[in-house]
Amino acid sequence: MARIICAGLGPGDPDLISVRSDRVIRAATQVAYFRKAGRRGQARAIVEGMLRPEAVELAMEYPVTTELPFDSPAYNGALAAFYDGWADRLAAMEGEVVVLCEGDPFFYGSFMHLYTRLRDRVDLQVIPGITGMAGCWHATGTPITWGDDVLSVLMGTLPEADLVAHMRKADALAVMKTGRNLPKVRRALESAGRLGDAWLIERGTMPGERVARLAEVDAADCPYFAIVLVHGHGRRPEVVE
Amino acid sequence: MARIICAGLGPGDPDLISVRSDRVIRAATQVAYFRKAGRRGQARAIVEGMLRPEAVELAMEYPVTTELPFDSPAYNGALAAFYDGWADRLAAMEGEVVVLCEGDPFFYGSFMHLYTRLRDRVDLQVIPGITGMAGCWHATGTPITWGDDVLSVLMGTLPEADLVAHMRKADALAVMKTGRNLPKVRRALESAGRLGDAWLIERGTMPGERVARLAEVDAADCPYFAIVLVHGHGRRPEVVE
Repeated sequence: MARIICAGLGPGDPDLISVRSDRVIRAATQVAYFRKAGRRGQARAIVEGMLRPEAVELAMEYPVTTELPFDSPAYNGALAAFYDGWADRLAAMEGEVVVLCEGDPFFYGSFMHLYTRLRDRVDLQVIPGITGMAGCWHATGTPITWGDDVLSVLMGTLPEADLVAHMRKADALAVMKTGRNLPKVRRALESAGRLGDAWLIERGTMPGERVARLAEVDAADCPYFAIVLVHGHGRRPEVVE
Repeated sequence: MARIICAGLGPGDPDLISVRSDRVIRAATQVAYFRKAGRRGQARAIVEGMLRPEAVELAMEYPVTTELPFDSPAYNGALAAFYDGWADRLAAMEGEVVVLCEGDPFFYGSFMHLYTRLRDRVDLQVIPGITGMAGCWHATGTPITWGDDVLSVLMGTLPEADLVAHMRKADALAVMKTGRNLPKVRRALESAGRLGDAWLIERGTMPGERVARLAEVDAADCPYFAIVLVHGHGRRPEVVE
């Protein structure tokens, strides 16, 4: 039976990988990772210099990314066939395969689609990682949540009215999948009265890290791999004079 | 000028500490950590066996924990004086001090109260960690969020009506600070129609880990260090026949 280990990579800085993932990656003889066709892939870039020279690499290239609407039957079918195919291929492999996964594999990760297909068929382990959003809040140099703060994690793909409702209710916010949704996210933050406190973080913990006040970012500037954060201000013990 | 490094420890398993925190902890000559008076402390327990034998240890013992209501002026004043005092003491130290912090230091961590007091006075670095809640969702063996799921992180100390409102709106939930608030959290989940999907996780990733359906846990059983989770079910690519 194949043995699959999914190694969470954390937010991007290889020094923030867990001790266990680091050990597993450096010892791997077979390494698989997702990437967009024609690209090197972010997961593979994070482990540059860590792999054994003789390690066999398996690039799992998404059949579609943004060419089709994500809610269309064609997109759904293409991705389902892609995950089905790779699950079969990994299950049939000899020995141990390490699957690299950016951030935390159980937090909005693509690996979960393989996980559900493989969990009853192979020996499967998943190693947690620091989330990409945590890397981003550290990049701002300001704690994200205090005391009784409510943190809501939202996807920029949600309808604008839903975004506004959550933005009004929560104390701290993390908005992922921004990219082409950024103008909508910005309008929603403005409707909820939170735009002035919002930060845009690109490539948190990685070379080229950029932290900017969202309100000051040019409206046409919609980086694909960016997260929007609003910090909470919770209860804090301070001497009241 | 003192140099303070706050090392995030992650959810509890020492193997899940980041490579950078691990290196900093093993090299430390002065180590500080919070703990309840009279206890060994969870942060110190996680690094057992990792410290240099000659490392100087500074136990920062909370002056109060649950003896006073957390919203009383007396509690507030005692904690403010405690953080002020330790900030002064750390700032006056020679050389490098490593402050241990469970989970991620910027995510509901006590260290943040030292951070705000020290950031303009000393050379200060913070190393992210895997959050305790991520350790708990990995303990359940099920991904916490998929596709467009909204995740809300709630504190059990919130008013019941606020808990219910958030529990109704979000797809996935993480409820921290349960303990004596667990009966209220359970009622709120029931009002929101989510109790049947809720899990209680104690000591995620640590020895003595326990994962149970909350509805099946005895109502009198309110472990202090436990997290309640409800998993999201998001959009998933599956072949529709």
